[in-house]
Amino acid sequence: MTDNKIGAYDLVAEPFHVDFTGRLTLGVLGNHLLNCAGFHATERGFGMAHINEENCTWVLSRLVIEMEDMPREYDKFRVETWVENVYRLFTDRDFAILAADGRVLGCARSVWAMIGMNTRRPVDLTSMHGGGINDYICDRPCPIDKPGRIKVAATEPAAVIQAKYSDIDVNGHVNSIRYIEHILDLFPLEMFRDRRIARFEMAYVAESYYGDELSIFLEKCGEAEDYNAEIRKNGGETVCRARVVFRENPE
Amino acid sequence: MTDNKIGAYDLVAEPFHVDFTGRLTLGVLGNHLLNCAGFHATERGFGMAHINEENCTWVLSRLVIEMEDMPREYDKFRVETWVENVYRLFTDRDFAILAADGRVLGCARSVWAMIGMNTRRPVDLTSMHGGGINDYICDRPCPIDKPGRIKVAATEPAAVIQAKYSDIDVNGHVNSIRYIEHILDLFPLEMFRDRRIARFEMAYVAESYYGDELSIFLEKCGEAEDYNAEIRKNGGETVCRARVVFRENPE
Repeated sequence: MTDNKIGAYDLVAEPFHVDFTGRLTLGVLGNHLLNCAGFHATERGFGMAHINEENCTWVLSRLVIEMEDMPREYDKFRVETWVENVYRLFTDRDFAILAADGRVLGCARSVWAMIGMNTRRPVDLTSMHGGGINDYICDRPCPIDKPGRIKVAATEPAAVIQAKYSDIDVNGHVNSIRYIEHILDLFPLEMFRDRRIARFEMAYVAESYYGDELSIFLEKCGEAEDYNAEIRKNGGETVCRARVVFRENPE
Repeated sequence: MTDNKIGAYDLVAEPFHVDFTGRLTLGVLGNHLLNCAGFHATERGFGMAHINEENCTWVLSRLVIEMEDMPREYDKFRVETWVENVYRLFTDRDFAILAADGRVLGCARSVWAMIGMNTRRPVDLTSMHGGGINDYICDRPCPIDKPGRIKVAATEPAAVIQAKYSDIDVNGHVNSIRYIEHILDLFPLEMFRDRRIARFEMAYVAESYYGDELSIFLEKCGEAEDYNAEIRKNGGETVCRARVVFRENPE
């Protein structure tokens, strides 16, 4: 019963998708997770192409990734994904990332809303397709904490960048994954040599567009290598907030 | 005879791999070409992992991509690749990019050298594995011009960037494909809306590293939307030179 509610997708860590330590980058992993979400939803009639025909679109609201280890260059790995909850305005989709031998490398949580493409207003998910989306709710637990609340008080940006051609996706917005890459690019290379990203949490607040000036604010929380970040556009509106938790690398 | 000298790899244009026009980005296509080169070489005992064991490594010297059209989001497409020539110090590898219906979307050429990992000096390709590499030479023609000579006289950079974590690949260098993305990011968005990249040519001259300051010089050649670009590091040494030819978009 539970099994056919879980989508499983086999992937490989390609040479240009790993960082200088030979580990899959978090941005590429995030991209794979969103693709797998798309495959799973499409197979169930709730994919982007399908709901676009009904003048609706999915909007990613939260993404949390916790990894014990990352696939290395050429490693095969598997992404499993399932729907944990469907509420009126949001749905929770979870992920597990498994090594070829079945070992769990990490897990992820995502929160999505559906909006009308023209109205830009939320759609009641529980009534979509006569409530059909509820049939896909799966009781498999996801053993990582739900997204928390992120507050950033910093007033001086750590970096200011302009959204460029390569940042923009098919919707004309800055790609959700690019924000992750821009935030990670604030850290010195040694951080990725000596440590690994144990948890990355992202709250997507507003869209940004080509030419927007993106100011990235970063602040360290306490003694541990635990950081909060916020991206604001054109000197004002918050685009997204993130939390990055690094842990010492065992090797 | 010719057929088994040609590697064929089936791919899909993923949602986050297309630009705002819904077309596969040139950077992602370039990445696929290099991966397919890797698969083809690996299947013949000349892959990176194999030759690394012999303390050698492949170095990409030239990459030329000419496209009539690009795969759109979710399109299946195929990359075919074969070895055109093997010289003492260089080998020419060609590519064809085909739509699902077999239509040729474009072609590409690449030139590679092999160097000793410790000596950093070129290896005689014709004598590798007792001349075995010559067995893979294929007489299939590649209908696009060979790479030309690119000269850039500009003295004022169009952009200055610093090589960041996300730019660096497993070899510790700035990723070959990232240079393409950084050069394309110099153009306004309208360029990609009204035109398509008909030809992109890259000459890789030297490696750059984390923290290097990369100055990108750009100059228009004549009346057409034909540009030359050069990236120099830390105010001096040339890292790569590129030529980008845009053509009016029929649609």
